[in-house]
Amino acid sequence: MFFKVKTSEEVFQIIEQFGPLGDERVPLEKAFGRILSRDIISPEDLPGFYRSSMDGYAVRAKDTFGATESLPAMLEVKGEVIMGQVPTGGVGPGEAVKISTGGMLPEGADGVVMVEYSHVLDENTIEVNRAISPLEHVILPDDDFKKGSPVLEKGCLLRPQDLGVMAGMGLSGVYVYRRPRVAIISTGDEVVPIDQRPKPGQVRDINTYTLSAFCWQAGAEPLALGLCKDNFEELKARVEKGLGEADTVWISGGSSVGSRDMTLKVFESFRDVELLVHGISISPGKPTIIARIGSKAAFGLPGHTASAMVVAEIFLNPFLSRLSGKGNFTSPLSREVEAELTRNIESASGREDYIRVRLIEKDGKRMAEPIFGKSGLISTLVEADGLVRVERNTEGLYEGDRVKVLFIRPKKGVSC
Amino acid sequence: MFFKVKTSEEVFQIIEQFGPLGDERVPLEKAFGRILSRDIISPEDLPGFYRSSMDGYAVRAKDTFGATESLPAMLEVKGEVIMGQVPTGGVGPGEAVKISTGGMLPEGADGVVMVEYSHVLDENTIEVNRAISPLEHVILPDDDFKKGSPVLEKGCLLRPQDLGVMAGMGLSGVYVYRRPRVAIISTGDEVVPIDQRPKPGQVRDINTYTLSAFCWQAGAEPLALGLCKDNFEELKARVEKGLGEADTVWISGGSSVGSRDMTLKVFESFRDVELLVHGISISPGKPTIIARIGSKAAFGLPGHTASAMVVAEIFLNPFLSRLSGKGNFTSPLSREVEAELTRNIESASGREDYIRVRLIEKDGKRMAEPIFGKSGLISTLVEADGLVRVERNTEGLYEGDRVKVLFIRPKKGVSC
Repeated sequence: MFFKVKTSEEVFQIIEQFGPLGDERVPLEKAFGRILSRDIISPEDLPGFYRSSMDGYAVRAKDTFGATESLPAMLEVKGEVIMGQVPTGGVGPGEAVKISTGGMLPEGADGVVMVEYSHVLDENTIEVNRAISPLEHVILPDDDFKKGSPVLEKGCLLRPQDLGVMAGMGLSGVYVYRRPRVAIISTGDEVVPIDQRPKPGQVRDINTYTLSAFCWQAGAEPLALGLCKDNFEELKARVEKGLGEADTVWISGGSSVGSRDMTLKVFESFRDVELLVHGISISPGKPTIIARIGSKAAFGLPGHTASAMVVAEIFLNPFLSRLSGKGNFTSPLSREVEAELTRNIESASGREDYIRVRLIEKDGKRMAEPIFGKSGLISTLVEADGLVRVERNTEGLYEGDRVKVLFIRPKKGVSC
Repeated sequence: MFFKVKTSEEVFQIIEQFGPLGDERVPLEKAFGRILSRDIISPEDLPGFYRSSMDGYAVRAKDTFGATESLPAMLEVKGEVIMGQVPTGGVGPGEAVKISTGGMLPEGADGVVMVEYSHVLDENTIEVNRAISPLEHVILPDDDFKKGSPVLEKGCLLRPQDLGVMAGMGLSGVYVYRRPRVAIISTGDEVVPIDQRPKPGQVRDINTYTLSAFCWQAGAEPLALGLCKDNFEELKARVEKGLGEADTVWISGGSSVGSRDMTLKVFESFRDVELLVHGISISPGKPTIIARIGSKAAFGLPGHTASAMVVAEIFLNPFLSRLSGKGNFTSPLSREVEAELTRNIESASGREDYIRVRLIEKDGKRMAEPIFGKSGLISTLVEADGLVRVERNTEGLYEGDRVKVLFIRPKKGVSC
């Protein structure tokens, strides 16, 4: 079977066909960082009453017209508004009632004089030395939200302030998209569990840990199914388990050709299967496989941790965003920042390259310093703060070029 | 007692006196997003053996010297390296052994010829049409990490790749700083629980939700102690409980003057107390109180959600970083991005102003659009993507100015 290597744009389109999962209702205090699955409409006017936005005196604005330092208005103080209570008396002409920020405006008052512009003459009298306009320093009953108006849109990531607004509206529960569950399988005859001492020729299972943490970072739940030898029956059983219990299955292949072929054979052995991607024209990450099995996506990732992480950042991040209902929002953690390249980067034309970079500050400028090293070393990943993309149709980038750095997650200390 | 309002720089210095909490050992799979409390030194050489970084043939480099397309070197193929096993035979002069990426180099071989530069003549013979240098496509036993070399520094935020490296070294548990526990108390006679219908003059408790979510966002654990009326004994008991069970206590005051004074009185009633901050020259957020009670910091925050959130972002974020042992790293979520102002911002000199802005894209440029609205409206916070700081000694910023936007957490769709 012949299969053309796909460009990253083609892969993004393929990922688009996987839609959001269902939703669930969670208590408001558990909703931080989740994705809203239904629009929020204000169930009532907020704050619902005329409210002072300053400490001062509730008055009739008209009574202050023309008031200045040299010609202040004199008003009679008739008590004080108690916080959280409906004021007992009103404000008549020539009268003022003491009020705190957030207090309810008494009947008759249509503005608040800030305490800074008043002067206490005696127990019952103040001078006001500045005019206010009607409704000055007053929050109207529907100033924050009008009943029936849109508040938050489905697909948005819930931040602290979004929870605050829902609390203000008395919404103690909220509908959010289900978190994607990701079955993670590590394969490779040379790979051993991390608590085992590798014999010469063996290495410990790294990908289970990097990919699980990647899931947490993207708001998904990893389901680590552990290590699997390069054995068809064993791997098939593991993938079946993953498809049964999770929303997607990710196999990180051993680094050998045989191991990669095994993943493909297992995927193709399912009944309702469609091979969507077999190779992507990017480096690292070329030997990536994507198949649709039933309604779920199964991924075969490169065995090299560094390559698997690049594929995860570039493709699995938007894929999880699709499942999470995030729309075009990917991850709060994986944004781009601009930086200036410290040196030239060569790249083969016809291939999209992702270069690991370190972010440094130099003369107050943010610089991206390429990390060179043998492919397959995990140490280069630890030193990296992000990735710079070299487009398919260029032959490289030059020192001093302004570049966008993806996959930003500085370890420490970089102010960016 | 007279207390001078402090500048934000002074407050940052005061925050510096609170050091990191103790540490704890967690299993590696739970360490994502935590802060490392002890340096990691490589316990062994990694990968620990000579490893191929390509698919191809393990050879003696010398045997390929001078090889070209027109004058290839002929080598005898002596079997194949099995993944995860020590090769049974060695590579003698004129010999080659098939090897996969990640395979262990056989005795005698000192380089790998990529499969792309070889040509199979028959079952036992290949042609090599390019010379390799010694150690080409070979990862040395200590290429990734040398035994005893530094790997990760204490104070770093653990990312997926950092977990990967520790997995590779067989570190199944890791020491991290304890997450700060934050006792959160909402006060104000006008505030009611969110499941209660507010009467006129009352509002629901928003700050418990925004501040709790803020803690999660910063990697801390909120301990919501609920609502408290403006009553000295009740509030004191609540603060005592908070100091007993958490590492810091945050009271968000009701919006009235009386409520703010109550917080101060309660703090001052403790035995080993020192008032550190009583007012900060910023807007919003001026009426902030910080006290040291015993070895813990207690904060009195403004009652307005918007003001409390600004104080949280500007001061509580670095405070939590200090407790978390993050060093100068604040939060992965609260970085600065650059943007261009869409319009002028006026500001009173002598005061640091924080202006809420929306981030928009216009002609491919990232722009910051100030959100104007009455102070005290929560709707403005929901519309905001970040904050722009107007320095104390300026009278404002101009349309077109390049500004840094703090507190970035776009709701949706902004590519920044």
